[in-house]
Amino acid sequence: MTAKKRAIVLHSGGIDSTVAAAVARDGGYELNLLHFDYGQRTEHRERTSFAAIARAFDAKGREIADVQFLQMVGHSSLTDYKMPVPEGTSGGIPTTYVPFRNGIFLSLAAAWAEALKAEAIFVGVMEEDGPGYPDTTEDFVNKMQQAIDSGTKPESKIEIKAPLVHMSKTEVVKLGAKLLVPFGMTWSCYQDQDIACGVCQSCIMRKKAFEEAGITDPIRYRK
Amino acid sequence: MTAKKRAIVLHSGGIDSTVAAAVARDGGYELNLLHFDYGQRTEHRERTSFAAIARAFDAKGREIADVQFLQMVGHSSLTDYKMPVPEGTSGGIPTTYVPFRNGIFLSLAAAWAEALKAEAIFVGVMEEDGPGYPDTTEDFVNKMQQAIDSGTKPESKIEIKAPLVHMSKTEVVKLGAKLLVPFGMTWSCYQDQDIACGVCQSCIMRKKAFEEAGITDPIRYRK
Repeated sequence: MTAKKRAIVLHSGGIDSTVAAAVARDGGYELNLLHFDYGQRTEHRERTSFAAIARAFDAKGREIADVQFLQMVGHSSLTDYKMPVPEGTSGGIPTTYVPFRNGIFLSLAAAWAEALKAEAIFVGVMEEDGPGYPDTTEDFVNKMQQAIDSGTKPESKIEIKAPLVHMSKTEVVKLGAKLLVPFGMTWSCYQDQDIACGVCQSCIMRKKAFEEAGITDPIRYRK
Repeated sequence: MTAKKRAIVLHSGGIDSTVAAAVARDGGYELNLLHFDYGQRTEHRERTSFAAIARAFDAKGREIADVQFLQMVGHSSLTDYKMPVPEGTSGGIPTTYVPFRNGIFLSLAAAWAEALKAEAIFVGVMEEDGPGYPDTTEDFVNKMQQAIDSGTKPESKIEIKAPLVHMSKTEVVKLGAKLLVPFGMTWSCYQDQDIACGVCQSCIMRKKAFEEAGITDPIRYRK
């Protein structure tokens, strides 16, 4: 038996990163889940989801990287608790954008990948049907790929895989259902940690996707 | 009077990053110095240098980002204390290479730059006369520039400046002397924190550069 291919998966505990992890597992990769604590409002709840899903997926490795620096940086309603989390969806880049978050996350993942000799980093970014952040596009992923190729050892071959980048959220939910993703363990709400608020952009997008997919969302909502 | 141009400077406390800070100051930038604590052996001493130089340069802002994740990653003699720091210089990439360190550092700097509306990130990397790390080349800097351009807001214009990238260490020391860099406050040794060891690659390169520049290095060495 040959050694299993090894992957790092950026894992928030939400639907997209959990489906990305399921795609990696389905592709035969050994999973090493990487979560980030950057002072986001719902970190306590996200961490519970991360741990539960890592167990459910029998992940080989799991780590939580401390990026509290992003809380110092602020400039986002997810990390600056004085800024309100907007209700509903908006035009343009919403205030929930965290400056260059995925650049930081992919860079930290690249360091771990190089040390582990992992050949892939899975990330659940979505370009068209995501929240409209600049660091969730295919172009951005390609540019980070080039930076990682250039800035790591010549023998390190690390490929960023963004399997959801051109999917709709509805397609992601359907794919997750097919791959038996434990949706009840995931957390998407930007605002609350006990019962999902149901009115922030992330809750609205999640509810709509389940409805369109014709699948019952197992979590409860306040509204 | 127009507002001062604003820069983030990656600042370890060593010679290269201090000269890069002096170049930024000389270019009329407001300085915001960013130091990283990633579990490196000499962090205590580096931090003292960082603080002293930030004061000497009258930096507008200064922050220390915690990147202990790199200590968990290990895979480097700077962060894994069980690996010896090599004496002398070596062929190939030395064990002091820290996986994708400058990718992580530039990404964190980009987040702060975006929040501060800084227009430049100064980094003291050297391609030809550095320690031979893959994340210190002009190609790497260009690739990170493209990733930052792609992954930040369209209105954020952040330029990475690597003024030393094609200089020799001797030229860097000469430039530092011209810009009145307080070399006595800087720290380069990879190994020790009280008196510089004088035999690690970093000490050897520093001593040689001062000698070739015909300038007296104000710090003491054990050997």
